[in-house]
Amino acid sequence: MEKHIAVIKGDGIGPEIIDQAQKVLTRIAEQYGHTFSFEEVLAGGCAIDACGTCLPDKTLKTCLNSDSVLLGAVGGPKWDHLPGSERPEKALLGLRKALGLYANIRPAVLFPQLADASPLKPSITANGIDFVVVRELTGGVYFGAHQTTSENGEAVASDLMIYSEHEIERIAHVAFQTARKRRHHVTSVDKANVLDTSRLWRKVVERVAEQYPDVTLSHMYVDNAAMQICKNPAQFDVILTENMFGDILSDEASMITGTIGTIGSSSLGSGTRGMYEPIHGSAPDIAGQDKANPIGTILSAAMMLRFSFDMPSEADAIERAVSAVLDEGFRTGDMMDAHTVLISCSEMGDRIAAAI
Amino acid sequence: MEKHIAVIKGDGIGPEIIDQAQKVLTRIAEQYGHTFSFEEVLAGGCAIDACGTCLPDKTLKTCLNSDSVLLGAVGGPKWDHLPGSERPEKALLGLRKALGLYANIRPAVLFPQLADASPLKPSITANGIDFVVVRELTGGVYFGAHQTTSENGEAVASDLMIYSEHEIERIAHVAFQTARKRRHHVTSVDKANVLDTSRLWRKVVERVAEQYPDVTLSHMYVDNAAMQICKNPAQFDVILTENMFGDILSDEASMITGTIGTIGSSSLGSGTRGMYEPIHGSAPDIAGQDKANPIGTILSAAMMLRFSFDMPSEADAIERAVSAVLDEGFRTGDMMDAHTVLISCSEMGDRIAAAI
Ligand SMILES: CC(C)[C@H](C(=O)O)[C@@H](O)C(=O)O
Ligand SMILES: CC(C)[C@H](C(=O)O)[C@@H](O)C(=O)O
Repeated sequence: MEKHIAVIKGDGIGPEIIDQAQKVLTRIAEQYGHTFSFEEVLAGGCAIDACGTCLPDKTLKTCLNSDSVLLGAVGGPKWDHLPGSERPEKALLGLRKALGLYANIRPAVLFPQLADASPLKPSITANGIDFVVVRELTGGVYFGAHQTTSENGEAVASDLMIYSEHEIERIAHVAFQTARKRRHHVTSVDKANVLDTSRLWRKVVERVAEQYPDVTLSHMYVDNAAMQICKNPAQFDVILTENMFGDILSDEASMITGTIGTIGSSSLGSGTRGMYEPIHGSAPDIAGQDKANPIGTILSAAMMLRFSFDMPSEADAIERAVSAVLDEGFRTGDMMDAHTVLISCSEMGDRIAAAI
Repeated sequence: MEKHIAVIKGDGIGPEIIDQAQKVLTRIAEQYGHTFSFEEVLAGGCAIDACGTCLPDKTLKTCLNSDSVLLGAVGGPKWDHLPGSERPEKALLGLRKALGLYANIRPAVLFPQLADASPLKPSITANGIDFVVVRELTGGVYFGAHQTTSENGEAVASDLMIYSEHEIERIAHVAFQTARKRRHHVTSVDKANVLDTSRLWRKVVERVAEQYPDVTLSHMYVDNAAMQICKNPAQFDVILTENMFGDILSDEASMITGTIGTIGSSSLGSGTRGMYEPIHGSAPDIAGQDKANPIGTILSAAMMLRFSFDMPSEADAIERAVSAVLDEGFRTGDMMDAHTVLISCSEMGDRIAAAI
């Protein structure tokens, strides 16, 4: 198959981790007889520096014409002083909205080789951690009106958390369909004891659930969910939640696996085109030193093959290669312990590509 | 001294835990020569059942005329079907607003006797957990306009997250003053890369910080904070944050101590009158069985003596008594392990009162 991939390296460690994912994708193309063409475009801080805007038109156009987007990471202290509407992070939000990527899927999985890295006790991790967070990505307080005005001589700022039924409906379907391929349980997280958006959320999710009698549904308040993720993560199969809660809970969920550098994510809309990126940030402190962990990006590339290109064997091959290299004891700095061997970001990419 | 205390037992385990706190306060009054008068009033689900409203006028009036309010817990599945504006939880929100309690202080402390209860690894808890969350309690998305309307034939719900400068300023002062009595560090948590409210938050907090040159200030995004609380809780001294983020993070913070049943909280405004309550909920599943852990409520009573009544020795006496009973190995069910002795809620109250 021929696929055209828009590549956004972004800022900080973005370029070095993307390079490794491209290595791996190129290897897959050779082995499986595909043609992947990569078109590199700018977004984030580097785009602000080069073009004066975090999301140049050309970038958007290239992404819209691509079969999928592979993204490293954007942002960094260099651009932190900019007003909200001009920050590197706006590129992410703009891309999500323009590409209609309303469904963000973030797995929280304990890698057996890295089980010691979890901050949780062995008595808790022994029960396993294997769930996904399905986060609504183009609605809620991220995309409602943001305003700062002056009232009675003082500044007043507001952000509107807003959801309409169809936005909740479509993400609920994603969660139930995901659960069907897993252990058939959805935990919908909201704050229905306080928020109108949450009460509508709960109502719509319950309605959608009727179409999935084989999937069980439970509801949980967001404050309780933040506790349960630490206390008993094994209880979760699919967590379904809105944008802001999903941001917080998916990061907490990845942290309890102890290996945030190894987790990829996919953002999908109604078609097959998606955006794939690791869940970690741009890590400016180690940028350019060939130290970063490229596995989150490489596994994001595997997700692209699986979800957008319908290439499950190829995706499996990448995942097996990652596992094999970890089994051999090779680690980047963030994953090191006493019994493992430190390698660089690029060597990790080389080894994973070679293991395919 | 004479103090008039409004007592809201509430729902579920509320009555049994409040009884124990009253026992302890009565013992303090005897020993230290104070007079505490208790006036019991209804709020929450039991008030809906008895008076048709979760927060009857009489309750509000009694609280406004009290020196402080002691609250058990409100809510339960019996009232979960009610519309948002009529739920038991509305009583809490109504009391916070009417009493002007904008500052909610929730400690996250690892009790040495209960260190094994933490879900975190010993290598993490060994560094200690001892921080407080200062949560803004009368603003943000909890109190902005809640709306559900119909647009183009579908329901659209919204909640307004809104903050004005003075609301941020006064809670920032509480955080910096709290830090002065502790380890002089404030971590302000926001989502300034997305929200206007957060950008105003950050600006005002930085301005207030100039008045506290002896306190260091750092900023953290809320998604990162949710991770750092699990990864390295020892880094925190005072976490300052807005209402919704504070709800989520303070629950996560209490969970990592492993002893949510033992944590109290205070809600204060500009005067000395406060509302004191445990951070756990009404636990309907064990209500009326004399099994609940009353320590969170008893330590809330101690906070009342310390923060509202300026009785630090009396507060110390309660805290010492709790510690002594735990040292002797007595536990309610939620705190049990192999080497401890199970006692009931009321026996826990008796033993703590007797130890004063
Ligand atoms: C950078 C930021 C805008 C973004 C978000 O909050 O969505 C990030 O935290 C994420 O989760 O992808
Ligand atoms: C019951 C609910 C409204 C309340 C809140 O969210 O403030 C509770 O979770 C709390 O933290 O006191």
